[in-house]
Amino acid sequence: MNIPLQLDENRLFPSDSRERTIARELYDSVKKLPIISPHGHTDPSWFADNECFPNPTELLIKPDHYVFRMLYSQGVELSDLGLKNRVNPEASQVDPRDAWRLFAKHYYLFRATPSRTWLDYVFKNVFSLDSVLSPETADHYYDTIENALKQDDYRPRQLFERFNIEVLATTESPLDDLAHHRKIMESDWQGRVITAFRPDNVVDPDHGGFNDNVDTLGKLTSEDVSSFTGYLNALRQRREFFKQHGATSSDHGHPTPATADLSEAEAAKLYQTVRAGGCSRDEAELFRAQMLTEMAKMSIDDGLVMQIHPGSYRNHNQSLFENFGRDKGADIPLRAEFVENLRPLLSRLGNSKDLEIILFTLDETNYSREIAPLVGHYPSLKAGPAWWFHDSPEGMKRFREQMTETAGFYNTVGFNDDTRAFLSIPARHDVARRCDCAYLAGLVNTGRLSLNDAQEVAVDLTYNLAKKAYHL
Amino acid sequence: MNIPLQLDENRLFPSDSRERTIARELYDSVKKLPIISPHGHTDPSWFADNECFPNPTELLIKPDHYVFRMLYSQGVELSDLGLKNRVNPEASQVDPRDAWRLFAKHYYLFRATPSRTWLDYVFKNVFSLDSVLSPETADHYYDTIENALKQDDYRPRQLFERFNIEVLATTESPLDDLAHHRKIMESDWQGRVITAFRPDNVVDPDHGGFNDNVDTLGKLTSEDVSSFTGYLNALRQRREFFKQHGATSSDHGHPTPATADLSEAEAAKLYQTVRAGGCSRDEAELFRAQMLTEMAKMSIDDGLVMQIHPGSYRNHNQSLFENFGRDKGADIPLRAEFVENLRPLLSRLGNSKDLEIILFTLDETNYSREIAPLVGHYPSLKAGPAWWFHDSPEGMKRFREQMTETAGFYNTVGFNDDTRAFLSIPARHDVARRCDCAYLAGLVNTGRLSLNDAQEVAVDLTYNLAKKAYHL
Amino acid sequence: MNIPLQLDENRLFPSDSRERTIARELYDSVKKLPIISPHGHTDPSWFADNECFPNPTELLIKPDHYVFRMLYSQGVELSDLGLKNRVNPEASQVDPRDAWRLFAKHYYLFRATPSRTWLDYVFKNVFSLDSVLSPETADHYYDTIENALKQDDYRPRQLFERFNIEVLATTESPLDDLAHHRKIMESDWQGRVITAFRPDNVVDPDHGGFNDNVDTLGKLTSEDVSSFTGYLNALRQRREFFKQHGATSSDHGHPTPATADLSEAEAAKLYQTVRAGGCSRDEAELFRAQMLTEMAKMSIDDGLVMQIHPGSYRNHNQSLFENFGRDKGADIPLRAEFVENLRPLLSRLGNSKDLEIILFTLDETNYSREIAPLVGHYPSLKAGPAWWFHDSPEGMKRFREQMTETAGFYNTVGFNDDTRAFLSIPARHDVARRCDCAYLAGLVNTGRLSLNDAQEVAVDLTYNLAKKAYHL
Repeated sequence: MNIPLQLDENRLFPSDSRERTIARELYDSVKKLPIISPHGHTDPSWFADNECFPNPTELLIKPDHYVFRMLYSQGVELSDLGLKNRVNPEASQVDPRDAWRLFAKHYYLFRATPSRTWLDYVFKNVFSLDSVLSPETADHYYDTIENALKQDDYRPRQLFERFNIEVLATTESPLDDLAHHRKIMESDWQGRVITAFRPDNVVDPDHGGFNDNVDTLGKLTSEDVSSFTGYLNALRQRREFFKQHGATSSDHGHPTPATADLSEAEAAKLYQTVRAGGCSRDEAELFRAQMLTEMAKMSIDDGLVMQIHPGSYRNHNQSLFENFGRDKGADIPLRAEFVENLRPLLSRLGNSKDLEIILFTLDETNYSREIAPLVGHYPSLKAGPAWWFHDSPEGMKRFREQMTETAGFYNTVGFNDDTRAFLSIPARHDVARRCDCAYLAGLVNTGRLSLNDAQEVAVDLTYNLAKKAYHL
Repeated sequence: MNIPLQLDENRLFPSDSRERTIARELYDSVKKLPIISPHGHTDPSWFADNECFPNPTELLIKPDHYVFRMLYSQGVELSDLGLKNRVNPEASQVDPRDAWRLFAKHYYLFRATPSRTWLDYVFKNVFSLDSVLSPETADHYYDTIENALKQDDYRPRQLFERFNIEVLATTESPLDDLAHHRKIMESDWQGRVITAFRPDNVVDPDHGGFNDNVDTLGKLTSEDVSSFTGYLNALRQRREFFKQHGATSSDHGHPTPATADLSEAEAAKLYQTVRAGGCSRDEAELFRAQMLTEMAKMSIDDGLVMQIHPGSYRNHNQSLFENFGRDKGADIPLRAEFVENLRPLLSRLGNSKDLEIILFTLDETNYSREIAPLVGHYPSLKAGPAWWFHDSPEGMKRFREQMTETAGFYNTVGFNDDTRAFLSIPARHDVARRCDCAYLAGLVNTGRLSLNDAQEVAVDLTYNLAKKAYHL
Repeated sequence: MNIPLQLDENRLFPSDSRERTIARELYDSVKKLPIISPHGHTDPSWFADNECFPNPTELLIKPDHYVFRMLYSQGVELSDLGLKNRVNPEASQVDPRDAWRLFAKHYYLFRATPSRTWLDYVFKNVFSLDSVLSPETADHYYDTIENALKQDDYRPRQLFERFNIEVLATTESPLDDLAHHRKIMESDWQGRVITAFRPDNVVDPDHGGFNDNVDTLGKLTSEDVSSFTGYLNALRQRREFFKQHGATSSDHGHPTPATADLSEAEAAKLYQTVRAGGCSRDEAELFRAQMLTEMAKMSIDDGLVMQIHPGSYRNHNQSLFENFGRDKGADIPLRAEFVENLRPLLSRLGNSKDLEIILFTLDETNYSREIAPLVGHYPSLKAGPAWWFHDSPEGMKRFREQMTETAGFYNTVGFNDDTRAFLSIPARHDVARRCDCAYLAGLVNTGRLSLNDAQEVAVDLTYNLAKKAYHL
């Protein structure tokens, strides 16, 4: 059965018709603004090499853990979707068309999820498909998308331009040589694809390969990483190198937002302990905590904006991790605490006007209880948008409702798409713009914000705040 | 003053008229579907013996802790409602009509609570009462209900049929002989009343009488419960016995969802410790944790679906407990944590397609942070509906809004009424159906779900998901 | 640019027009009821001396940490607003008009915050200003307000009467001589300004000056505070003294709601430990915990209602505290836990009908999980309204939605403005009345409450519940 694929032009707007009219007016004024994507995980080689994407499965399923986690939860094997099982690689040698059919068969699972909203947007607006994806339409979808991807105007750079992206940040480790970014910079293409400095694998003793990574860091920078001073210098060098490749921010994915303010001697001693291997759980946590403060100090010096993305229990599913590796939909949020945890850093540096730290959380209870009060007081703090599982219409609604009354709009930083799924970027920004306009329309219609102010705020939330916060 | 008792036919539907129309259309398609009640606490003797219910107080007040907790909070003594004070039994010898009058006098306390919604539904639809309960109408209510209860068509089996219940599960301890269920099975009545296996009193060392209960378990099964192996065999036998009496699920009411994965030797040693009496708080917790994993293993073998209902501080009011016993409205929710707690069990068994665990919580912060991400990944996990204090219009709304975007609909299991109040069952299912349809109508009206999909989902949430999840 | 300052007469009412009509009808019936302000922090000297307020900055900025915290978060120095820097007092010698201009320049930061709603209400309704505050209108505002404040009808007592305040409670330490309250009582003015007993500085060992304060307490009462008995007697005396100055309540601002039930000997010994100085963190917590139980015992004897306001991390910003002192917008909420924490007190006294404890929280997760179940059971407990950061339209909505279904309306206590900003009192009560009526209208329109009941509840929430709960 072919069901028409329709995108309601009033989707995500309020139900009340007066309010809907206001939302539409606000949305119409921001919908065509360029996309600022200050934080995400797309692959820079796409834009460096500008090769055609190979096929629908490779493009739309395999990089998107939102998609395959849902299928896995209902009994679909990741290897049947073509994800590589590193223990048993042969199991993953599936025909990408079969993987696509399997996806189509389970597409009903995504009803009322943001993935469904994003994918339908991509199918309709990027590939002009006009029936809903289903077992019956799976092959038509596959053929249509596969054919499109062979066209020049579906190459990464052409899509980047078509998507009206003003700037796109990827995220790299300090050990990355940033060759793709250099290639882009040196090319005649004008697209702005910048990096962000994500040092988890050289500051987190629990990260697999930490010690080897630090050794590599030493070699890359010719710093003597046997001392804490040398190690910090090496990090400083790489931050500078990243800045030369466009970076305006660092990013820190720690298990908790713990910070510390050790003396130099204590920190140096702790560094020796973690480098010696086999440090305790507490020592590892303390080292990460101290490193956030060290990064904040460097941030004051070099101007990189600091993002903290805490509170994910990474690779919760042990056997899945062993077979398929990281980022396979098995990262689960943990309760987070910011008030005690951030205090050491804030006591040291929190009143600095040269420091900007953007706080994210997966624990929505932090919004009204901790983050709004903190960013509504400290000049160095801002609140990042609703993140990951909460990058959704209801998630964004809760974020605005629980943050705005205490923090206002101007202690927030606009939208992040934070995605590996390149094609979903316009869809995600469209959802954010619609949800923000819906929220503002509600405020206007209940006498809490004038229409004039709402119009200004809509542009700020869509464009200005992200540019300003990320120094873009 | 007699105020007309009216049930708004659009109650619990959205305010917006377009949305309300959609909700009504969806509701009309599911309102007459049979009731699946896969988890609850009604008394099986009602259906085995089919005696008339004695009087309104005995039927509607005394089994319903939602009712008497509210009265108690405003200074009404439980003994004045006829609840038995075991220390001072004479205090409870009240005329049931007086208890009813006391309830009527305080009926205003229930304004805007689900109890009021359920009770009004029962008064109107089961007893055809047409004025609101008040001190003035108390006697009329008492007489009307008392008279009705003498009629044959108000006997338990007749009400069961009138309520259109397809299957009703009660909950029993492994020590129960299930005589009532056997009597029902052996009768010529076709009503399906099944049991569920709730082993808390033989797996929780903190449960009063644990050791004696385990001894009894040994005698019942002729297993040697002096060893852990014998103890596990005894549990296996009782699970089988419960299956023969219709059980399709087990149920576990632990203080936390802690699980463990001890070696056989460690587990056996711990068993000896807890059986010896006087184990520590941590040992008791560890034993319960290990037993959840043991139950999961048995579940894979025998197919009983496993329900975990954690996080209630039972009998918080010490003196009330001493005087009146369990289940007297003094159970208070605790903060709960699922991510670390479930990991031992999930690391061992979580990828099994033969295991199904349904997670409940009283801590709504778990929904978006923990449960939705967990059930949206692990094939063995599903999310139970909004439970107990959250079995309410706002509670269900929060459940759907905080679960659906990450978990979808198909990692949830429909509605549970979970009640001791038999007459409220249709009222509770009606509230759930209305709230689900209201939620779906909102999605349709904001372009997040097609009407076709919503119609299919409405039937799934009402009927199919519960049947499938509970193997009914 | 002068933008008209307009207060939408339907502000904060529901969007749906049927619902809005109901809300308006309910609001019209309560909007003119007298203000009961049972808890707050206004300065009693204002009403004792009835001097003119000096200027707009002194009246509207300097006492309002909601205002200057937001400015500080965006880089404005507190000293530039005229707040006294005790380390560097000269920095604070700013022209109050310059401070006002700085405020006006940043007024856009308050968009969609309750501060904006309150301030606009004051500007329009108290000072008849008709353009929005902005850099362009800053001087006009300053002149208009400054001139008004010189008029007799803008003196504190005259405003008190104009605001239709029936009773206003301030909050004082046991060491306060209550001279202002006595002066008011002895004057011929009929306004009722009462005190409340806030003993934190003599029961919290972590409070700066605790030991000296207890010594002073001994001197004031001629009790021998070297013994725990004498200390308790001294507190009893001061409670009595406060009652003579109108107090009907005590108030307790502890870091957590921990309570304890030590034996007399243990408590006496602990008192000696904390008095000796240098007690541990745990001992300080235990002493505060025991003192809540001691206060509850006294409350049963003398009838003062007990308020518990826990869970604020006071003076989180260390250097700001050192420079500017307490209450400077740097108090940040902490996660709170009531179930385990209150149990010692409740096991001892919780079933008493002569005890009334009003629970507040800054951790909204407590509402549905802990506070509603607790107050919906224990006769001694009631729930205070949405507090501080949550005294806002969305905060009140969450409070009602998460509390009502389990606790009903009659285990809550109406509204508290809890403010230092005298002029905002009518604005705050107006917001609360509007939000309550909006909530009730939603219940009526979705068939959950009859219009008759809603009318009665609206009056109860506005007026009766606060009067009853606070024994006014």
